[in-house]
Amino acid sequence: MKIVNLPTLKDIQIAHERIKPYIHQTPVLSSQQLNEKSGSRLYFKCENFQKAGAFKSRGAMNAILSLSEDEINKGVATHSSGNHAQALARAAKIMKVPAYIVMPSTAPKVKVAAVEQYGGKITFCQPTLEARESTLNAIIEKTGATLIHPYNDYYIIAGQATACLELISKCPDLDMILCPVGGGGLLSGTLLSTRYLSPEIKVIACEPEGANDTWQSVKSGKLIPSLSPQTIADGLLTSLGSLTWPIIKEQVHDVILVNDQQIIEAMKLVWERMKIIIEPSSAVPVAVALSAREELKGKKIGIILSGGNIDLNKIPWL
Amino acid sequence: MKIVNLPTLKDIQIAHERIKPYIHQTPVLSSQQLNEKSGSRLYFKCENFQKAGAFKSRGAMNAILSLSEDEINKGVATHSSGNHAQALARAAKIMKVPAYIVMPSTAPKVKVAAVEQYGGKITFCQPTLEARESTLNAIIEKTGATLIHPYNDYYIIAGQATACLELISKCPDLDMILCPVGGGGLLSGTLLSTRYLSPEIKVIACEPEGANDTWQSVKSGKLIPSLSPQTIADGLLTSLGSLTWPIIKEQVHDVILVNDQQIIEAMKLVWERMKIIIEPSSAVPVAVALSAREELKGKKIGIILSGGNIDLNKIPWL
Repeated sequence: MKIVNLPTLKDIQIAHERIKPYIHQTPVLSSQQLNEKSGSRLYFKCENFQKAGAFKSRGAMNAILSLSEDEINKGVATHSSGNHAQALARAAKIMKVPAYIVMPSTAPKVKVAAVEQYGGKITFCQPTLEARESTLNAIIEKTGATLIHPYNDYYIIAGQATACLELISKCPDLDMILCPVGGGGLLSGTLLSTRYLSPEIKVIACEPEGANDTWQSVKSGKLIPSLSPQTIADGLLTSLGSLTWPIIKEQVHDVILVNDQQIIEAMKLVWERMKIIIEPSSAVPVAVALSAREELKGKKIGIILSGGNIDLNKIPWL
Repeated sequence: MKIVNLPTLKDIQIAHERIKPYIHQTPVLSSQQLNEKSGSRLYFKCENFQKAGAFKSRGAMNAILSLSEDEINKGVATHSSGNHAQALARAAKIMKVPAYIVMPSTAPKVKVAAVEQYGGKITFCQPTLEARESTLNAIIEKTGATLIHPYNDYYIIAGQATACLELISKCPDLDMILCPVGGGGLLSGTLLSTRYLSPEIKVIACEPEGANDTWQSVKSGKLIPSLSPQTIADGLLTSLGSLTWPIIKEQVHDVILVNDQQIIEAMKLVWERMKIIIEPSSAVPVAVALSAREELKGKKIGIILSGGNIDLNKIPWL
């Protein structure tokens, strides 16, 4: 019972209805001080307040709720050390089924603890993509669990699209939306929601200079993988997928790059002035908003703050 | 045109109406994870999101709006290096009059910068109470500015009382409210609002062990000043005042002490799980809620998070 075509507005609305009991309808905040600093009117969709601390709970819940009873009883599996792993473990816990999470043996303790907190069954492997995939395949072979990919899955994309659905319903007259891009799940979902509901809104992908594969892909017109990315924005290291890339290629208005210094400054400014915790990946679109680009001046801009999971013992500016 | 008697409900309601255009009606947040950890149901009144980052904007606005035209044109003055100084400077800026702020020469740069940001006219003095008072008196003598005391002023108390007014209107069936206490402006305001609106709510004062003058005062029945307090909660160092103490003495249900270790742990937990920035003083009632006291178990508890102003280059657990 998989969506095999691009999620429709109906698919996104169904996703929204069925995940509603399990997620927060996160607030949209504004800040006079950040408006003044940016010269724009900024509307922050606060997915840092989302369950498990990131928008990933939307996609994970939608994906798990799309499984048949037979599938779901065997559990779900993924390899990730990031927010998707936490979100999937939480979704599985809600459904009272196992979540098999493959993590590299080098994963930070704080991330391991976060997955354990939601009862995820962790298998450690060598920190290579090959080891991660072969370990995951062996687990799926043995358990019959369903692989839930972090972004290259239409149910995941439809789930992530619901953040923008809520943003647009609260702020219908935005000029543009700034969205961070890693694998492209959030970005492609955001593009679909704006396409269906407010096609006049320009969606701009925001990416770290040290992980600029989306920028490269859009400029060259073909999917360029992310090779040895280097950035503080640890949620944005992955390559685009075969499902997310075509949506992005067709519809994204622009890709804007910022460097790690800008990202850290933007993050600190949000903590200091808005009194909310965001992770470095969320600070990427904020850094774009603060970059004084002419095209953003005076505009009404939605910013998706993707998450707030950060090791508080490692503050990037200290 | 000073209130010379205890603020009435009407005084607090008038304060609320007239400060409304200049302050945030801050949200009340809850957290499943903190509920589980505390064994209670916690409702956080987020004054860390207040204008100028703390509840102090309520009292400062109310005090400045209570002045006659002649008084207000000469400006306002205070000695403070904390949130009251910022709040008063902001209130004066809104009214387009000068705010004369006396600060000790040892005040942290970040606090000086915050007052300057709101256009406060700072005079530095030696870091003694005597120097602060004599410097302030000389300025008042010269300028005719009106002294706005940080807490020992009925307009300030009525202004601070509006935070509890909003909390009770959103959560009418609380069993108790946990409130930090320094000079007692917020606490006495909270006591008045509960007395008038929901006298069945028990208000508990929360205080650092290293600045336990309210605890001592309540136990002994007489106002004991705060002598060489030592705590991370830098907003709670001052003594009670002649106006705040009688209200506290008459009505406070209890005073509960927590140590700096508990305060820092509570603060980190709120940052980590709720993704919001609170300052150490705000973490004092959270630490009380997490202290597993029998009388709090299963109760519906309001917690006033008093502010979010902290030097992000000095994180207490690092």
